[in-house]
Amino acid sequence: MARYTEHRTIEIKGMRASQFHISTAKETPNDAEIASHQLMLRAGLIRRLGSGLYSWLPLGLRVVRKIEAVVREEMNKAGALEVLMPSIQPSELWQESGRWEKFGPELLRLHDRHNREYCVGPTHEEVITDIARREIKSYRQLPLNFYQIQTKFRDEVRPRFGVMRAREFIMKDGYSFNLGAESLQQSFDQMHVAYCNVFDRMGLTYRAVEADSGSIGGAQSREFHVLADSGEDAVVYSTEGEYAANMEKAVAVSQGTRGEASQAMETIDTPGVHTITELATQLDIDESKCLKTLLVQGVETPVIALVLRGDHQLNEVKAEHLPEVASPLTMADAAAIKAAANCDAGSIGPVGLSIPVIADADAAKMSDFVCGANQNDKHLSGVNWDRDLPEPIVRDLRNVVEGDASPVGGGTLKIVRGIEVGHIFQLGDTYSQSMGASVLDENGKPQVMLMGCYGIGITRIAAAAIEQNNDDKGMIWPMAIAPFEAVICPINMVKSEAVKEAAEALYNELKEAGVDVLFDDRPLRPGAMFADMELIGIPHRFVVSDKLLANNEIEYRDRTAAESVIIPRADVLSKIV
Amino acid sequence: MARYTEHRTIEIKGMRASQFHISTAKETPNDAEIASHQLMLRAGLIRRLGSGLYSWLPLGLRVVRKIEAVVREEMNKAGALEVLMPSIQPSELWQESGRWEKFGPELLRLHDRHNREYCVGPTHEEVITDIARREIKSYRQLPLNFYQIQTKFRDEVRPRFGVMRAREFIMKDGYSFNLGAESLQQSFDQMHVAYCNVFDRMGLTYRAVEADSGSIGGAQSREFHVLADSGEDAVVYSTEGEYAANMEKAVAVSQGTRGEASQAMETIDTPGVHTITELATQLDIDESKCLKTLLVQGVETPVIALVLRGDHQLNEVKAEHLPEVASPLTMADAAAIKAAANCDAGSIGPVGLSIPVIADADAAKMSDFVCGANQNDKHLSGVNWDRDLPEPIVRDLRNVVEGDASPVGGGTLKIVRGIEVGHIFQLGDTYSQSMGASVLDENGKPQVMLMGCYGIGITRIAAAAIEQNNDDKGMIWPMAIAPFEAVICPINMVKSEAVKEAAEALYNELKEAGVDVLFDDRPLRPGAMFADMELIGIPHRFVVSDKLLANNEIEYRDRTAAESVIIPRADVLSKIV
Repeated sequence: MARYTEHRTIEIKGMRASQFHISTAKETPNDAEIASHQLMLRAGLIRRLGSGLYSWLPLGLRVVRKIEAVVREEMNKAGALEVLMPSIQPSELWQESGRWEKFGPELLRLHDRHNREYCVGPTHEEVITDIARREIKSYRQLPLNFYQIQTKFRDEVRPRFGVMRAREFIMKDGYSFNLGAESLQQSFDQMHVAYCNVFDRMGLTYRAVEADSGSIGGAQSREFHVLADSGEDAVVYSTEGEYAANMEKAVAVSQGTRGEASQAMETIDTPGVHTITELATQLDIDESKCLKTLLVQGVETPVIALVLRGDHQLNEVKAEHLPEVASPLTMADAAAIKAAANCDAGSIGPVGLSIPVIADADAAKMSDFVCGANQNDKHLSGVNWDRDLPEPIVRDLRNVVEGDASPVGGGTLKIVRGIEVGHIFQLGDTYSQSMGASVLDENGKPQVMLMGCYGIGITRIAAAAIEQNNDDKGMIWPMAIAPFEAVICPINMVKSEAVKEAAEALYNELKEAGVDVLFDDRPLRPGAMFADMELIGIPHRFVVSDKLLANNEIEYRDRTAAESVIIPRADVLSKIV
Repeated sequence: MARYTEHRTIEIKGMRASQFHISTAKETPNDAEIASHQLMLRAGLIRRLGSGLYSWLPLGLRVVRKIEAVVREEMNKAGALEVLMPSIQPSELWQESGRWEKFGPELLRLHDRHNREYCVGPTHEEVITDIARREIKSYRQLPLNFYQIQTKFRDEVRPRFGVMRAREFIMKDGYSFNLGAESLQQSFDQMHVAYCNVFDRMGLTYRAVEADSGSIGGAQSREFHVLADSGEDAVVYSTEGEYAANMEKAVAVSQGTRGEASQAMETIDTPGVHTITELATQLDIDESKCLKTLLVQGVETPVIALVLRGDHQLNEVKAEHLPEVASPLTMADAAAIKAAANCDAGSIGPVGLSIPVIADADAAKMSDFVCGANQNDKHLSGVNWDRDLPEPIVRDLRNVVEGDASPVGGGTLKIVRGIEVGHIFQLGDTYSQSMGASVLDENGKPQVMLMGCYGIGITRIAAAAIEQNNDDKGMIWPMAIAPFEAVICPINMVKSEAVKEAAEALYNELKEAGVDVLFDDRPLRPGAMFADMELIGIPHRFVVSDKLLANNEIEYRDRTAAESVIIPRADVLSKIV
């Protein structure tokens, strides 16, 4: 066996703290706003080099490498093939796809010594499509799914939150090439399963949610969010069934029917009232009895009125998808409002307007409502559709709220905060068409390939895992991505030869069992050592002391448990493996 | 065990060719000059994206990942700690070290959206020194050795030879921090051993050679060369003992003594003679009887004469280290030659010159020699040191030649071609001094840290391994870095269920034994399949056919063997593991 095994790579499990570089700090850095950023700096996982640029110290890089390994294995299992494309990309390809002009200042552009233009790759659709159009000639080679794990750069205008929104970061980006929509859907579904496997294995609580597919009609788009209160995104899911979507995409279900008109329409004085809250307060009614009117327009479309129930929020993505708007959406300015409604923004209402009125489904079910009178300092009360103004065009315009009925499969909607760590998306022929990536089909005829793209934010996962799993003592790593799986803390090893021997023996035993174990052999007081290890968030802690040894025992603490427990020495392995 | 193992990463061994992307070509690409570049393109390991920019296809990336894994493990074993620094580096750090101005156009500079200056890192001395000066405060933390495996960019004026001299490439760069020269030497020696382990494990024939340390006097510098006839560098080693050096550094040993003067000095006519070869031919003597005189100068030093035996070559690095020159060295121009010797370049000689004459040791031992007469179309014969001109200053000025005595430990020198794949170097305080990286020593006094730097060209190793190991059929990979370790080639599997079953069984058996095996299940003729696998260079090939199955046999071929052999089915594993 020797000839074969001697060249194999065997990852070294285990490390002595004295030979590692542990660099913790008690103070919370004052330029770090969120828990993960603070803790990663305090625990010495990362160091800032410049705006949005971070070095990964040994402790942090262990986390990154474990995340990469899980992703790589699940991609391989799903039949994706790993490649590696250059980071520096020639501008010519981006000109072919049309993105050299369209991509904003996030694209870091540069010139080489011969004054040729390049960018530092923020994503690789152009490069992979260029490879595919040269490599793939026949339908027989399809489907193919390539991925890479690579450093990207996006020149964020305001990088923040440490590696959560850094300029340089590591991504897994994958691209499938398919003949026909059905094959694309299969690749997409495979990636969905693989992504679930990735986040399941990492021990993270997450949701896969439907997302808006932008301008590509009908294409599927799904985001993977790690749930955390600090998350920037609102994630919607149903208490029953599978339904989940991001806020942009979540479908609002309107329930109930319109009540009968019971009041006469009257004009009321509302001096100084400009908002729904002010209106409801002054009239002492619920905001849900007020109608909110917003005047909007697209780039080349005229001003229209969108109306919502007073307690509802406009969903701008839904509004942009209205054929009457066409994205991007802008709010009408004061002059446009004056021209359309003859008043200021706080007094608009749909009665008597000569522009199209589009109502959210819930707004269309209101009766005896209050709305602006299109006259400053005046509102109308007792207003009713059909009687006082024409029936509106009815659409889903609002953000869902907690308790809304699920649009699919029963249950009601819940809203939680999430951090987007993955996105799978059907690109269709967006790139393959413009860049001419086609194959010969079974009949020998050229067919443009369809593409899917599949991204995972490797370094962002590290931050998201911390946002989800931390307490006042520090980070709490899930096993699969912990920098170390277990730590041995010997008490007063400098003075006790027995403790030293027992700790060394335990270290060897855990290493041999394949546990990635840290032996904290630094000459530290127990309190300082424990604080370091809790800050670093190692899942399993084993304490060795003279007192414990006398009873052949070990003190064990699960990082998630409230208390440590005394266990027989023989039970150590059973706590981990 | 399940709870523990389910989150572990287990690399998948084995791949079906039908589910892989094999993209071979028969034609040698006409823009590829050397074997490795041609073969990497033909076998589908890499694809060109732009000048000096290559994508790694799945087959090639498997090689890169295996090289990385060997390097990573040996670095970890040697106690080095892996980090990852940003690729994009702020110019401020380079200004601190003084390299922002000094580094030439190979440094790819760019501006971000806020017009701040950065470069794409070609190396990371500045960044690691910045980290060290903030992280390392006490001598107790030393020594420390950090490394990373990362994509670098050097804007080569003329990228060529594929990934051998690409602009974007992967390097392992490591940096040690030490207190005192002795500690630095220890780190350096550890890295020397680790580098030898790396190249030993990869199964490459290589030499570790002394290299010139440039302007840092006394610092050690050692290069690791993979030997290959196509190598750009000349590597010198002794037939006995350990001595090895690159050509720049190799010490020339002068043997024998000066003969007695037996001829009178005479001026001879040599019309049209401008070179040593012409001189030796016209006089029908050996070039070693002629003396070569070169006039050189440093940037701010006057012209001096360097003389060598006619058959010897000037070693410019040695000349640059002369105190009389001071680098960089330039050859005197025609005007300077005229002023110093009153003739043209082809007729200079040391007799009667009024500038310093420095002779190589072998030139100083010549007697009755021929040299230029400092008069066009004239030479002097029968010249003797001391009698006809003063004894020169004697120095080692020449390149060594095959058969020279080794300067250390006996034996004679051999010269072979090599490809530089690694370099370890004692930086001393070059960066730590200018960037203020110091620690408190045992007495509480600040001491500037010393640094070593240690590089390995990961992607270049792939090319160098091919240059060293190939034949007319293709690449011949060493086991440790082969894209696959073994391949199963079934004959006519489409028609024979027995072959299919036997091949599948063998595939499973090899996978279970941990062999990284390719199952070539493509519907190809045997000839085409064998040609592909020989081109790709998989070390072990197993052929399954109905005929072989009848005798319970397998055809086995070691890629390095001249012939295949028939072996009992039961012996398959013994050929690999």
